[in-house]
Amino acid sequence: MYRAPVDEIAFTLKHVTGFAADLDSGRFGDLSEDLVDAIVAEAGRFAAEEIAPLARVGDEQGAVLKDGVVTTPPGWADLYRRWCEGGWNGLAAPEEFGGQALPTLLSVAAFEMWNSGSMAFAIGPTLTVGAIEALDKHATPELQQKYLEKLVSGEWMGTMNLTEPQAGSDLNALKARAEPVGDGTYRIFGQKIFITYGEHDFTDNIVHLVLARLPDAPAGTKGISLFLVPKFFVNDDGSLGARNDAFCASMEHKLGIHASPTCTMIYGDGKFGDTPGAVGWLIGEENRGLACMFTMMNNARLAVGMQGVGIAETAAQKALAYAQDRRQGRAAGFKGEGMSPIVAHPDIKRMLLTMKAQTQMARAITYSCAYAIDRARLGEGDEAKAWQARADILTPMAKAFSTDVGVDVASLGVQVHGGMGYIEETGAAALYRDARIAPIYEGTNGIQAIDLVMRKLPLQGGEAMAAFLNELRADHAALSDASGLGATAERLGQALDDLEETTAYLTKALSEGRVNEALCGATPYLRLFSLVIGVALNTRALAAGDRPDHAVLVRFMAENLLVETATLRQQVIGGADSLDAAADALLSA
Amino acid sequence: MYRAPVDEIAFTLKHVTGFAADLDSGRFGDLSEDLVDAIVAEAGRFAAEEIAPLARVGDEQGAVLKDGVVTTPPGWADLYRRWCEGGWNGLAAPEEFGGQALPTLLSVAAFEMWNSGSMAFAIGPTLTVGAIEALDKHATPELQQKYLEKLVSGEWMGTMNLTEPQAGSDLNALKARAEPVGDGTYRIFGQKIFITYGEHDFTDNIVHLVLARLPDAPAGTKGISLFLVPKFFVNDDGSLGARNDAFCASMEHKLGIHASPTCTMIYGDGKFGDTPGAVGWLIGEENRGLACMFTMMNNARLAVGMQGVGIAETAAQKALAYAQDRRQGRAAGFKGEGMSPIVAHPDIKRMLLTMKAQTQMARAITYSCAYAIDRARLGEGDEAKAWQARADILTPMAKAFSTDVGVDVASLGVQVHGGMGYIEETGAAALYRDARIAPIYEGTNGIQAIDLVMRKLPLQGGEAMAAFLNELRADHAALSDASGLGATAERLGQALDDLEETTAYLTKALSEGRVNEALCGATPYLRLFSLVIGVALNTRALAAGDRPDHAVLVRFMAENLLVETATLRQQVIGGADSLDAAADALLSA
Repeated sequence: MYRAPVDEIAFTLKHVTGFAADLDSGRFGDLSEDLVDAIVAEAGRFAAEEIAPLARVGDEQGAVLKDGVVTTPPGWADLYRRWCEGGWNGLAAPEEFGGQALPTLLSVAAFEMWNSGSMAFAIGPTLTVGAIEALDKHATPELQQKYLEKLVSGEWMGTMNLTEPQAGSDLNALKARAEPVGDGTYRIFGQKIFITYGEHDFTDNIVHLVLARLPDAPAGTKGISLFLVPKFFVNDDGSLGARNDAFCASMEHKLGIHASPTCTMIYGDGKFGDTPGAVGWLIGEENRGLACMFTMMNNARLAVGMQGVGIAETAAQKALAYAQDRRQGRAAGFKGEGMSPIVAHPDIKRMLLTMKAQTQMARAITYSCAYAIDRARLGEGDEAKAWQARADILTPMAKAFSTDVGVDVASLGVQVHGGMGYIEETGAAALYRDARIAPIYEGTNGIQAIDLVMRKLPLQGGEAMAAFLNELRADHAALSDASGLGATAERLGQALDDLEETTAYLTKALSEGRVNEALCGATPYLRLFSLVIGVALNTRALAAGDRPDHAVLVRFMAENLLVETATLRQQVIGGADSLDAAADALLSA
Repeated sequence: MYRAPVDEIAFTLKHVTGFAADLDSGRFGDLSEDLVDAIVAEAGRFAAEEIAPLARVGDEQGAVLKDGVVTTPPGWADLYRRWCEGGWNGLAAPEEFGGQALPTLLSVAAFEMWNSGSMAFAIGPTLTVGAIEALDKHATPELQQKYLEKLVSGEWMGTMNLTEPQAGSDLNALKARAEPVGDGTYRIFGQKIFITYGEHDFTDNIVHLVLARLPDAPAGTKGISLFLVPKFFVNDDGSLGARNDAFCASMEHKLGIHASPTCTMIYGDGKFGDTPGAVGWLIGEENRGLACMFTMMNNARLAVGMQGVGIAETAAQKALAYAQDRRQGRAAGFKGEGMSPIVAHPDIKRMLLTMKAQTQMARAITYSCAYAIDRARLGEGDEAKAWQARADILTPMAKAFSTDVGVDVASLGVQVHGGMGYIEETGAAALYRDARIAPIYEGTNGIQAIDLVMRKLPLQGGEAMAAFLNELRADHAALSDASGLGATAERLGQALDDLEETTAYLTKALSEGRVNEALCGATPYLRLFSLVIGVALNTRALAAGDRPDHAVLVRFMAENLLVETATLRQQVIGGADSLDAAADALLSA
């Protein structure tokens, strides 16, 4: 059913970001446009022909926990093996450990497609990528030597263990503890919940990264350390030893992504081994675990954004195919025989185009974020800092806007299918269920908005934001000369006014200590900002030659979606007083 | 968990509509305010204490089909029996057949609460109410005598059989056929899909109302007739006879409302009886079945609107309770010990208030629609016509806006719960699944928007709309003097400008034959209109005394939600060109 949109993806990669020029100039070494196209095409083939066909059995049968053993759905372990054999797990991993060290941008594009094939599948490798990054940046050479090669090849998978029942969004409340043994190892005790792929049958070993507190650690997040806790110990020759004292005690019964095992993990319960405690090795410095985790988490946020884009693309394709096939009624101006395909009805057109346009806006934002990460890594000095700041600003929007788009587009997809959309066999409903977690995990979308307002607006004393706004004004100026785009330039200009006005408003509120007032506007501000860049970034590709379909989509974005900024501006600037007053009167316990 | 909001419901009943004054003046006979309050309270008690506790088992176990027999979840048949014993089934039914003939307004309020308890439960009686109405208005006295009393008591239930695989939104394509036998009966042949409570174990008999074509019928919807087809024949003494040739061949595996059996019904397949064909009796005139069905469908649309309100209310309550209990982080200005309850965070406040405000807006619209239906029934001459026109205008908004609210609020409810929202045990996810069907059935929300623009705007040569707009202007004028409401009057004024401008724009487009252009704006227009009346109708209750909580909620609606009209106006007036251009380029098969 899913057809990988390799043309749109390659076009966005190359022309929405500055990647095409970089390939010409050799900024990414000998990576060529042909190679990029070939990788995108091959990833697309694998996603469409290998992953997507197993999505339904994954949803229907789900992962099953029995006697501490998790069995993934029929065909899934073999799918994972073939995916690793294709070399996909190490796409952006360091060459030193067997990876291909390709740009984050390419990895992100590939993850869009894995997620389109099946989000429940792609989320496993997403976690492994995070673990590789954390070990590569922060682990000792000995640990790297022992674990990284097999994580990069995919022979083992990695997990992230943050959440505890009382500590979700707020890691201050973390209780898991780690006791130093004195031989360089630690004994870990505690319970972690919502651990994605915490236990499974894809690989022989699982490498858990676990946040825990040392006995003498300061309170709060400054007293959290990061540990590597393997499911099985690894002997010096690389073979597997005894079982560590970590196990999956239960698995959640979730709304969606049924094939992805969401585990409650128990560390140091005495189920395995003779000495109390799961054995762990410190990653990075003591009490600096959160910093290590944040390296991973930022990229994980972008990765979750790709879940939104991937789900939205699949939902949009599915709805379009149904609307072209299903016939009901006779649309005004329909020339054919009998009933029209429902795609001929204006309301269905509006839904389908909204789906397509939102997906492409989210794609532009996430790819641009990945590109900024690559440029920060490749650059030096102030240039690198400027690109890092750009990535920092884009990350909360890449995560929150894209995952909201995932839910909205999946919901529209159900609607386009009519009654059939509500029947599970059709598959539209599964996307609606799967999509719903992405706005929640890896920092809720509300937390992304707080991050944008509280941490990103003030970056570099506000200069990072000012530079971005200037660039967006230049996009608008370039557009003003373009013809055939209807009111696109005018709408973008108005939306930029809205963005500048709200940015100034929030900046002033923060500088005057009116934090609550600023936070009341955080969510509508993030959406406003995202809409503006979702359109502006896409306009950058207008000059890239023969794509009238892109131009017409950009115009639809501007005239039908970007106009939402008029509302959002009022919510940011005029919403806080009534919000506070109503909350005081209506929400107290 | 669910607590019936009897105060809000009684307040809305009495003071948002004109009902309180009517009770004083005796317009509704000897119905008193005390009696109204008592009925609301008792319905609320039943919904909260009897229905709601069975919602979860209904979702988890669902209805089960085996060998043609449908078994509802444990406890459900008994729940239905107790509900009927309470007299709830006949609340608004004619006294002649054992009903209480209470206003539609009260019935609608009760249905809000049944739906809050469990939408999968309430939808069964919703269909019976429709069948009672159709028989009461259109059936012969003999049929009425035989069937109505038991339908009113709830001893039997009714169904509506419209949809066939090729005929969903478009009933022109209907194929089921009816052959006259010559003795006043007909033989029915055909397959019907998506038949809600088409088979079950609540009652001994089921009364199917079935649309089918006579052999000589004209093509299209002018050749459709309505038939009564009982599951079991009814003897003259009221006892049940042989089984009719109608049965449930399969049941859908749906996203939600699992306890509600959605059946494929086969008529005249020869499974039961000796002579081919299910035996049916004509309701109303031959070839006039759609007119009979439309009587039911309009009220069914309002009834589906109540599903939206009911689900939204439950989701809002559930999220608020969770947010008051769950502690994470420390909100700015929080004075307590340790972590704040998450309700103290501005972003959570925004979500909870949006949920509460949208629910109350939908409640005001649906109750006002029910009130207009009552006034049309009680009134005479021009007054009755004016109220009927008001009900006609309100119906598509009562259906579409409220069911969109149901989905949006349920989705926000999942979000407020964070990771717990994605776990089925919490119950928030079930509401998100249940809510999703309501924008689809009984005429998709897109069809409601078409109905509003194509049929309702031109009602009475546009006079009905003009009268409504005048009334809304008067609401605004009354508000301009009110204090303590922030920018409410200003926002409502702007929104009214948007409504008037878009109404004029669409009216002109239609009068000039630009139908496609008008239809491109239909969905945003319906929403714009709904937002305006959702606020304006609620302002009517501001004068009703000591409810500062209502005033503060109205202000939140105006300053944070009503501002969406600025966007919707642009979509209606400036959206069609780019929509057409993009559809031509991107959506062709």
